[in-house]
Formats: sequence, structure tokens, C-alpha cells
Amino acid sequence: KPLSHEELEEGSTFAPRFDAHGLIAVLAIEAGTNTVLMFAHMNAEALSLTLETGFVHYWSRSRGKIWKKGETSGELQKVVELRTDCDQDAIVVVVEQMGRGAACHTGRKSCFYRRVVPSGGTAKLEDIGLPRLFDPAEVY
Amino acid sequence: KPLSHEELEEGSTFAPRFDAHGLIAVLAIEAGTNTVLMFAHMNAEALSLTLETGFVHYWSRSRGKIWKKGETSGELQKVVELRTDCDQDAIVVVVEQMGRGAACHTGRKSCFYRRVVPSGGTAKLEDIGLPRLFDPAEVY
Repeated sequence: KPLSHEELEEGSTFAPRFDAHGLIAVLAIEAGTNTVLMFAHMNAEALSLTLETGFVHYWSRSRGKIWKKGETSGELQKVVELRTDCDQDAIVVVVEQMGRGAACHTGRKSCFYRRVVPSGGTAKLEDIGLPRLFDPAEVY
Repeated sequence: KPLSHEELEEGSTFAPRFDAHGLIAVLAIEAGTNTVLMFAHMNAEALSLTLETGFVHYWSRSRGKIWKKGETSGELQKVVELRTDCDQDAIVVVVEQMGRGAACHTGRKSCFYRRVVPSGGTAKLEDIGLPRLFDPAEVY
């Protein structure tokens, strides 16, 4: 049965609220610095694998399958802590970013390497200058 | 016309990829500390209002309307910087959390106040001990 509002927000029952596609939003941040590394999704199985193995697993929406982060690139993410929010519809996973320290498939530490700057009623992107820690053409 | 893969990931064109419901995932983090404050969504209008006014606006899925963060509680979020990720399907907004410094409607600084701990094949939540900076019963 569904949790009470009180139990959902203040209780000790973990009841992640997957969306209509069976997915939950996940932010990976770096232990120590809190740097936001990447945004992705997990399904129930990816979440279980993450908790069981201590390494982050996601659900790839583009490939339609479970994806152990770093299985191709070597950029594994070791779980330090996993948190959920008040209404249990999002997860923050605090990780140690292994490999070259590049969470992004573009070779950068973080996927959030561009800032949005308003520009005359619309907006443009500006690169914030994160270096490439690997060459994607050599890794994938 | 849709952006090329190269322009989407490396270009200066801001082309946020809203989902089938017209929403994009947003994570608010605190300027300076990078503390993750909250996870929510924006629609195109909330995003425009955020960029135009310099204060964060979200789309409330439960109430079905635009929501200027802090309009009731006083816990406004002043935009310091807004970033998007490689495939432009998520936003990180770096904010100065105004008011009492409590982003969460429960009165805590962050919505991520519970850790998930594996417990015999399943998992439980443990409160990490963030203090309440206001009493929700008095604010809402």
C-alpha cells in the first residue's frame, strides 16, 4: 500500500517513486567537492545493482538497457553515499569518480561544461573551459 | 531544424530538450559550497522567467502551474549561474538561497536529508540530521 505523506517524507521506508517509464532521476556528485558530475536515470534493477555492487549502474534511455557506468570507458563510479529527496522522486549519488576522473562521455570531468547566458531575449551557451581528460574517439 | 550532434554537445546554441510533458529536469545547488539543494522541473516558460528575472521559477507537477520558488515561504533562489549538460536534457542552477536558507518545504536546507542504506536485500532510509530552519506548519 502507498506510504502516508508523513512516512514518505520523514520515515525510514525507502520507496523510490519511479515514473511512468519505470525510471527515477539521478544526479551523480563528486565526494568531497560536491561537484555535479552528471544527470541520468535508473530503473529499479539499476538501483538494486548500484546498492548491491557499490558501483553506479544507470538505465540508458537511448540504448534501452542497463549500463554499468564506466564499463567501456573505464570511468567507473564508486558509491560513497546514496540519498533521496523529500518526496523520493530523485536520487543523489555521491561517488568517487574512477578512471581519469571524467564522468562525461565527451572526456570532461562533468557533463555540465556550458553555462547559459541570456542574449537579447534568447540565450546562448558559453563553454566554462573544463579540460578534456580523454579523447572520446580513442575510448568509444 | 534539429541541431547536429556536434552542435548539441559542443556548440553555443541553447536548445533545451524538454520531455513529452514539456518539462526539463533541474537541480539547484548552492553557490560556493555546491551543496545540492533540490530537484524539480521547469517548462519553457519557467525557464524563460528564471533567465529574465534572475530568480528561479519551476513548474509544479502536483499543482500544474508555474511556481516562483519562495513566493509563499520567502525562500527565494537568486540565480548565480545556470548550466546545461552535454545533451541538453538537464539543467543545474547555481543559486544563492535567500530567506532562512531552507530550500526544502520541510524546512531543511536541502531536500536530500536522508541516505539510503542497504539492509538485508532491501534498503532503509537514515536521516542525516539536517536541522529545520523553519517550521512548515507556520509557513504554509
